[in-house]
Amino acid sequence: MKKFLNKPEDFVDEMLEGIYCAHPEVTYTADDLRCYVTANPVPGKVGIVTGGGSGHLPTFLGFVGKNMLDGCGVGGVFQSPSADQLAEVTRYVDQGAGVLYVYGNYTGDIMNFDMASELVELDDIETATVTGNDDVASSVVGEEHKRRGVAGIFFLYKAAGAAAARMLPLAEVARITEKARSRTRTMGVALSACIVPEIGKPGFEIGEDEMEIGMGIHGEPGISRKKLAAADDVVDEMMERIFAETDYAKGDEVAILMNGLGGTPKEELYILYRRVAKLMDEMGVKIRHVWLGEFATSMEMAGFSISVLHLDNELEPLIAAKADTPFFSYFAK
Amino acid sequence: MKKFLNKPEDFVDEMLEGIYCAHPEVTYTADDLRCYVTANPVPGKVGIVTGGGSGHLPTFLGFVGKNMLDGCGVGGVFQSPSADQLAEVTRYVDQGAGVLYVYGNYTGDIMNFDMASELVELDDIETATVTGNDDVASSVVGEEHKRRGVAGIFFLYKAAGAAAARMLPLAEVARITEKARSRTRTMGVALSACIVPEIGKPGFEIGEDEMEIGMGIHGEPGISRKKLAAADDVVDEMMERIFAETDYAKGDEVAILMNGLGGTPKEELYILYRRVAKLMDEMGVKIRHVWLGEFATSMEMAGFSISVLHLDNELEPLIAAKADTPFFSYFAK
Repeated sequence: MKKFLNKPEDFVDEMLEGIYCAHPEVTYTADDLRCYVTANPVPGKVGIVTGGGSGHLPTFLGFVGKNMLDGCGVGGVFQSPSADQLAEVTRYVDQGAGVLYVYGNYTGDIMNFDMASELVELDDIETATVTGNDDVASSVVGEEHKRRGVAGIFFLYKAAGAAAARMLPLAEVARITEKARSRTRTMGVALSACIVPEIGKPGFEIGEDEMEIGMGIHGEPGISRKKLAAADDVVDEMMERIFAETDYAKGDEVAILMNGLGGTPKEELYILYRRVAKLMDEMGVKIRHVWLGEFATSMEMAGFSISVLHLDNELEPLIAAKADTPFFSYFAK
Repeated sequence: MKKFLNKPEDFVDEMLEGIYCAHPEVTYTADDLRCYVTANPVPGKVGIVTGGGSGHLPTFLGFVGKNMLDGCGVGGVFQSPSADQLAEVTRYVDQGAGVLYVYGNYTGDIMNFDMASELVELDDIETATVTGNDDVASSVVGEEHKRRGVAGIFFLYKAAGAAAARMLPLAEVARITEKARSRTRTMGVALSACIVPEIGKPGFEIGEDEMEIGMGIHGEPGISRKKLAAADDVVDEMMERIFAETDYAKGDEVAILMNGLGGTPKEELYILYRRVAKLMDEMGVKIRHVWLGEFATSMEMAGFSISVLHLDNELEPLIAAKADTPFFSYFAK
């Protein structure tokens, strides 16, 4: 295992210590490093809370910041945070207007967020929930409720954060986030596995010339394993599945997230994006916004995903709204 | 070779096509994709031009933007751009106040920038030059002129960009940038090699349990190859070399750049940064600014570097000044 770490069992907490050293805009509550919250809660605003396993930076905690999320329960690598941790984050984040939970559609996370919701109900804190399920590869049309949440949750965060920043009430923030969820689709492809520090070996085997289309960000099996193809052909196959689920009219607008899974250089992401732009152009669809880089990773896994949000007049300004988190404010000091 | 690309020989130009698709804030001049320039030059401002080989994104071109660089000559992977390309970029960028060249200390780049400078002299464009040589591992004290430029050039860009944005004259922008150069030190360590697309195999071999301290970002040999140690010990060894070259007084301030070389996850960078912060604290030195992420990569190489800029009252506000480039403005839309 070729990683920079001290003891594998300290991986997550030492990572968090480093993050708190680097970024005074965030802190933790309940004396627990894993109860990650903004240092500057906004009175009267609906709180937005997420949570999930570690190993996906900047997902999840990297989106806590101004006009984005207010708190995040941090689990072990690929493990859910506990219900108690999520409840503590919720109590800190609540500013009297209730809290929206936005997280990925995984069994452990659902169980713990639901329990947290019950725990804070005793404190008279109202919650609502939207679970991201953008991963097209993880089940067929008609069974979207079985789909995993992956990188496309970024658009849900962006919509929820901007809606809450407008001081809208909880039900309205939830409605808007739910709309962003219903219009987001992601396809991913992996070239290599990552290594969970406490396990010490790759999560799966894959041949030197193979790719797996539709693989999940924890190494969940995808749709097909085949020979690595030319970049344009890989994009064509992925976009075909996304296009198959969306009705675009000429002139429609989308936002695109080109997400590196960790080990794939930006050079390649731009080569891949070039093809995405060409396909959208051929469809007569306008790419109104694009983000390209690492947003939801699987540590050092090589691969990438394409997320598409089908914009409408309500979502576009929310997605475009200014936001600022310690993980994304390099120059805006 | 497990990369997303079409033909290896199209790697750089297709990457550039993707970049121009994604980012309307940048464009190219002289009908040459590799003559990369801002779409919004500022009249009367000193132009800042860099250049170098591809394969290091976001270095070099990712720093072209508001309050940073104005243009960049883009070479093939690990190859210098040509003198003609650099001259074309210079002609576009010049707004009557002259142009400062800021680039890394490599033979090919020096030759081509010097030739470009002579070419544009015929157009009555004044130039000055500062070459980054922050890589402590690449030669001993007293022979700093032999040192390579690596990630620490970020601080030179930041200082030069902010000084030029204040509309200072060329000589003054050069003096400030030269000061940032003289106060910047970097140490790097690599765990794996990267693959140049047109070569198709790793640039060097390194054992499954080995690291190379001081390796250059093109795979140039470092100071020592040894067994991968605990993260804290790796940082201690690197910082010792940086501390040995700098006189810190209690209360002095620094800016830190924790740079991933491509294949190393942010989780690990934060674990490493945690130790850097502890060492600085023990020295009584204040970390005034920290940037952590991928700034100067070697495509998929695993490893990282630590750059330290010893701040003073003149440099601090320039380093802290707001800047915005397409590669670093994810949320500031």
